[in-house]
Amino acid sequence: MSEGEAFDFQIDRIITIVKDTGAKVIGLQFPEGFKRRSPGIGSKIEDETGVTVLISGNPCFGACDIDVALVDNVEVLFHFGHAPLDDNALSRKVYFIETRSDVDVKAVVELAVPELKGQKIGLITTVQHVHKLKDASLVLKEHGKDCVICTGDSKIAYPGQVLGCNFSAARNEDCDEYLYIGSGQFHPLGVSLATKKHVLIADPFVNELREADSSKVLRQRSAVIAKSLDAESFGIVVSSKPGQERMKLAEELKKMAKKHGKDAYILTMDLVTPDQLLQFKMDAFVNTACPRIAVDEVGRFNAPMLTPLEFEIVLGEREWEDLYFDEIAGE
Amino acid sequence: MSEGEAFDFQIDRIITIVKDTGAKVIGLQFPEGFKRRSPGIGSKIEDETGVTVLISGNPCFGACDIDVALVDNVEVLFHFGHAPLDDNALSRKVYFIETRSDVDVKAVVELAVPELKGQKIGLITTVQHVHKLKDASLVLKEHGKDCVICTGDSKIAYPGQVLGCNFSAARNEDCDEYLYIGSGQFHPLGVSLATKKHVLIADPFVNELREADSSKVLRQRSAVIAKSLDAESFGIVVSSKPGQERMKLAEELKKMAKKHGKDAYILTMDLVTPDQLLQFKMDAFVNTACPRIAVDEVGRFNAPMLTPLEFEIVLGEREWEDLYFDEIAGE
Repeated sequence: MSEGEAFDFQIDRIITIVKDTGAKVIGLQFPEGFKRRSPGIGSKIEDETGVTVLISGNPCFGACDIDVALVDNVEVLFHFGHAPLDDNALSRKVYFIETRSDVDVKAVVELAVPELKGQKIGLITTVQHVHKLKDASLVLKEHGKDCVICTGDSKIAYPGQVLGCNFSAARNEDCDEYLYIGSGQFHPLGVSLATKKHVLIADPFVNELREADSSKVLRQRSAVIAKSLDAESFGIVVSSKPGQERMKLAEELKKMAKKHGKDAYILTMDLVTPDQLLQFKMDAFVNTACPRIAVDEVGRFNAPMLTPLEFEIVLGEREWEDLYFDEIAGE
Repeated sequence: MSEGEAFDFQIDRIITIVKDTGAKVIGLQFPEGFKRRSPGIGSKIEDETGVTVLISGNPCFGACDIDVALVDNVEVLFHFGHAPLDDNALSRKVYFIETRSDVDVKAVVELAVPELKGQKIGLITTVQHVHKLKDASLVLKEHGKDCVICTGDSKIAYPGQVLGCNFSAARNEDCDEYLYIGSGQFHPLGVSLATKKHVLIADPFVNELREADSSKVLRQRSAVIAKSLDAESFGIVVSSKPGQERMKLAEELKKMAKKHGKDAYILTMDLVTPDQLLQFKMDAFVNTACPRIAVDEVGRFNAPMLTPLEFEIVLGEREWEDLYFDEIAGE
């Protein structure tokens, strides 16, 4: 996301909320790509309202990742760049500023039409572009395609929206293929693996098309599984982030490991990084935190980092054919 | 700390506490150097008591750094390697396992005697060796030296103990010089800067003597101050760790900055790292979290990282001559 692109930070709405709530101290939390905007936005809010602004310096990768320590120190937290999750017990104090993009999507969808082989196209995107799915569907219809925008599970705020850990809005059985609108690679890859259908990426920022090619990731995942087959000790990682905590799953996996005569240890932590796991001499790790970690950081850990599904394959409790991306499902 | 060295992890005491409290889920938290011991210790406790063990994977650099998320998920937390701090509101659930070293200190103190020029020697060390200060003082006395072991402020659990952020046990006016027993460099450097007295390091692990030479650090600190003199925007960093949080200090510094026409922003975070501050385009930072960060990570931040005292020098509110290491004082 470069400086020139226009995202809606809703400064006027924030100022109104600050004035209406009479808050004296507020927090601002931005994902990595927007952090550089925090001083300007913070100053503006302070100048207009006289409120004291605290800016979260912690890494932030999703709505799963509310800065709970900051929430405790402020009356209102503005969380930028993500839509609310269902299970956010903190959300009384948290306002989600979704930071929608005003970039046009019609041109790149026009470009995509000739590449779409199917008749019934599933439309998916991130929260930055959900308000543009209607534009996209109109273009597809003009070209004679049928268009489906599905409602996801309880973690998904908008029809057609996907998260890096939740592809439930891409579960329409009778779609022929998917068109993903956005710049990232991970979400469409996940959809491709979750649905085993063709996924075309239409990037509206650079007006380019790409294929979601899961073959490289699948080879990497197979290698991680293969390297873990002889492992005797496993560190099962649990994040304490509110939307990533899967302690029950970790406990089940630990029991499963013991059943197969393997040693397993539950490691709890906030941010999961290769550096931080260096100190633990395990034969392999299992990540129950943000599903992206095992995939995005593949090869950077000092031992193979498995997803929960992959761990089941290692233990012989699941078939290789039943390998999908790990998801954190809602209801 | 190599494998061969014997530290007392008090496994029998832990097992007794687990049995006595009837805890079903306990946490173990280790500083970086001891994390590799966690699977062995965790297994032993699980096998002997049937308790479920959760191991903290978060970085841990002191008793200031209790894993608060883990505390919430367990009945008892065993925190290794540090002595309790006065202000630990969590300590009802937290047992401090100080991990004392059994290494002999007499030999290295014998070695130190000829290098001690003064008559009255202040003895200081970390918690790993506090129980050996008596041995050290006997050696000094045998050689005709007077020996002082001072009580620190409320953050200091034992006479003669120093922390990386608290040298209050080295404030005896009529000491001629200090003898530090331990392996690190930072604590004796801090004492040297805090007292402006000669500090000799006696490392009992390798049986070697070193001088605490603060000149390099002083040059580095002067450079950091000099580079910040033209800065217009400052990110004032506040840690959310229970023993490192100095929000009031940060607010005072922000006011002081405004008085001098500078922009200042309070950034709250858990772990303070150069990577995590990369996203914030500030002319300089001020660290109110763990005092070691600015010193140990000097040059690794994308902008000068000042201590609070150094920031006062930059703003012209303090004389260069009054530069000391930053400390987090008790009462």
